Amino acid sequence: MTRYSRADALAADAADPLAGRRDAFDLPAGLIYLDGNSLGPLVRASAARVDAVVADQWARGLVTSWNTAGWMDLPLAVGDRIAPLIGAGPGEVAAMDTLTIVLAKAIGAALELRPERSTVLTDAANFHTDLYILEAMARRARRPLRVRALDREDLLGALDESVALVMLTHVDFRTGEMLDLPGLTARAHQAGALMLWDLAHSTGAVPVDLAGADADFAAGCTYKYLNGGPGSPAFLWVAPRLVADVANPLPGWLGHARPFDFESAFTPAPGIRGLVTSTPSILALAALDGALDVFDGVDLAAVRAKSLALTDLFITLVEERLPGALSLVTPRDHARRGSQVAWRHPAAFGIVQALIARGVVGDFRAPDIARFGFAPLYVRFVDVLDAVEHLAAVLEGGEHLDARYATRPAVT
Amino acid sequence: MTRYSRADALAADAADPLAGRRDAFDLPAGLIYLDGNSLGPLVRASAARVDAVVADQWARGLVTSWNTAGWMDLPLAVGDRIAPLIGAGPGEVAAMDTLTIVLAKAIGAALELRPERSTVLTDAANFHTDLYILEAMARRARRPLRVRALDREDLLGALDESVALVMLTHVDFRTGEMLDLPGLTARAHQAGALMLWDLAHSTGAVPVDLAGADADFAAGCTYKYLNGGPGSPAFLWVAPRLVADVANPLPGWLGHARPFDFESAFTPAPGIRGLVTSTPSILALAALDGALDVFDGVDLAAVRAKSLALTDLFITLVEERLPGALSLVTPRDHARRGSQVAWRHPAAFGIVQALIARGVVGDFRAPDIARFGFAPLYVRFVDVLDAVEHLAAVLEGGEHLDARYATRPAVT
Repeated sequence: MTRYSRADALAADAADPLAGRRDAFDLPAGLIYLDGNSLGPLVRASAARVDAVVADQWARGLVTSWNTAGWMDLPLAVGDRIAPLIGAGPGEVAAMDTLTIVLAKAIGAALELRPERSTVLTDAANFHTDLYILEAMARRARRPLRVRALDREDLLGALDESVALVMLTHVDFRTGEMLDLPGLTARAHQAGALMLWDLAHSTGAVPVDLAGADADFAAGCTYKYLNGGPGSPAFLWVAPRLVADVANPLPGWLGHARPFDFESAFTPAPGIRGLVTSTPSILALAALDGALDVFDGVDLAAVRAKSLALTDLFITLVEERLPGALSLVTPRDHARRGSQVAWRHPAAFGIVQALIARGVVGDFRAPDIARFGFAPLYVRFVDVLDAVEHLAAVLEGGEHLDARYATRPAVT
Repeated sequence: MTRYSRADALAADAADPLAGRRDAFDLPAGLIYLDGNSLGPLVRASAARVDAVVADQWARGLVTSWNTAGWMDLPLAVGDRIAPLIGAGPGEVAAMDTLTIVLAKAIGAALELRPERSTVLTDAANFHTDLYILEAMARRARRPLRVRALDREDLLGALDESVALVMLTHVDFRTGEMLDLPGLTARAHQAGALMLWDLAHSTGAVPVDLAGADADFAAGCTYKYLNGGPGSPAFLWVAPRLVADVANPLPGWLGHARPFDFESAFTPAPGIRGLVTSTPSILALAALDGALDVFDGVDLAAVRAKSLALTDLFITLVEERLPGALSLVTPRDHARRGSQVAWRHPAAFGIVQALIARGVVGDFRAPDIARFGFAPLYVRFVDVLDAVEHLAAVLEGGEHLDARYATRPAVT
């Protein structure tokens, strides 16, 4: 690649079909935000939606808003807006709970669908909460179950007829590696196992086609590339061909077929509604609902194309500008790359902190990874260029070696 | 009682030590809100707190707010503000999840503490979601367990050494009957059982002393008398003498001892923090945090005294003004009354709807109950007087028999 100039970056931004979406975000002036894979920024419509819920629906409508303002239906209504981003249909997705709780529901339900099988498989490098909840739910299955958390390359070899469920995260939170969702789903099915995908690091950044892949269960969070706000609700999808046979392991009144008849026995509402448990935060759902406005009419193929262009550019510029300084962890292969770029460096924590001090926000993952997320709806090509210049200044000036960054706090 | 006049009501309001708290609420002008036992009204400080989170902490601070704005600690910080309302100490309460999920954690944890016992007891008239989740968690215990949902008067007789756990709701959501929390806890303990209290209809309206009663587990919701907003987080308390032995049945990364070390094995954080699962809605917690301002410095004995005075007055005035028209369901005995009054009437649905049309908001519970909640921090004695006059006008004018109310919708 020849030297990429500021004019090149500005030209790429001018030609970007998604460039107009950036105005929907309330971004701090001058900040280069490359951490949307952790917490997406505020979409202006979210603030307006939350304000309307608080000042109007809650303050004026009070309890009647459960019906008049559509609060009862919000988990599914918001789910319907997530559905097209993951290859799901209307009425198939519910937004609710936290991701770990939603994973618990999917795991518990899946294990009951394969009662004769004794193993669950996952990736040893999975996000840790996924490992914790998988262990916990396996322990509570009504039979002895063995959880095997294996190295990624050993997964296929372990797929035999003992496997009830395979649970994988589509894009690795640390490395940004993207797994082959349709291929692995097919392999799991060949072995008669069910497949649960965690889409936390995919949804909104990478096109996902759950129906096309014939997946069984999927869950994800909405505060990353969907910009739903800190701790915004998770979502759950169950394949329509399975949902009628799925029992909610954590049933509650809102998932009842007749929630206001207050019946003593649980009769699930049909479809994904039966997987809803109890009263969701309407403020949290409203913020997410507003944030989803920014995806209206967006072509996910364009999102993916820009994501790859941004991450390609970042990798190329870092390696040109700072040859050998950082070790690339994220796959170069487009088919195996999500929407983030991770680098290994012994002083990764100091690098991330020094960049934050310069207004370039990425994040650190122990022990030695600096992560940078590229959200195509608001990150520009010129941001990539500027971020690399800041990174070069940090490394060349030794800013990352500042004594303040020598020990990292327990919470980062 | 001699005829109670408007002057009497105004004098009672003038003498009310809690009268000043009403200004903290954003109540619609002219509305008499007697449904704070379903959804509390907006506290002005909640709106301000949510706005600060959205416009400042989220929009400006972005991901760094997890540390700089104290988001990581919010479940316990908010829990610490609930603690004094339920007789709990600092660091003993976490605000998180929905009530059903929190109950699942308490039930699952309690059942593991009594592995040799085979029965769980509850009240057949318990709130239905409590019954659903109790059944579901008992089914997932690692041994056969029998759930006995009994009539209230049969509970003590069934308390034998087979009982692992007794799960009861302190104040009945339908009748407003308050159970003897210390007495029943002691009886459960005599039988060697653990005691889990659902405080949904108590917290903020009725003094609760969990430590004094030596209770084991308690959970509650915060959108009723705590005014946390629609679907605001639930809370969980575990007795300090038990918490070190309690395992979270739904573990997640936020309850890990070292959440940012991303360890493959779950090592719980000490105390109630180990019962936190994953990323909570910060907007929902912020609204609740703001709402709790209204309890700062409030004497719960004064709250209880006013609650009883309001419900006494309502019962007396209804029976004087409309003798024999409605059948009182709520106990007259103060020791057995929560902070609501429920009446039975064949046209209860029509009565509630006709009152709402007049600006007096109560609610209906199938099949024939009209419920009125009295939240002492904003309901006035003059509201009680006016509500009874509206009720009389409804019944005397036959407004409740309007054809619009002949059939009630599925969702009310």
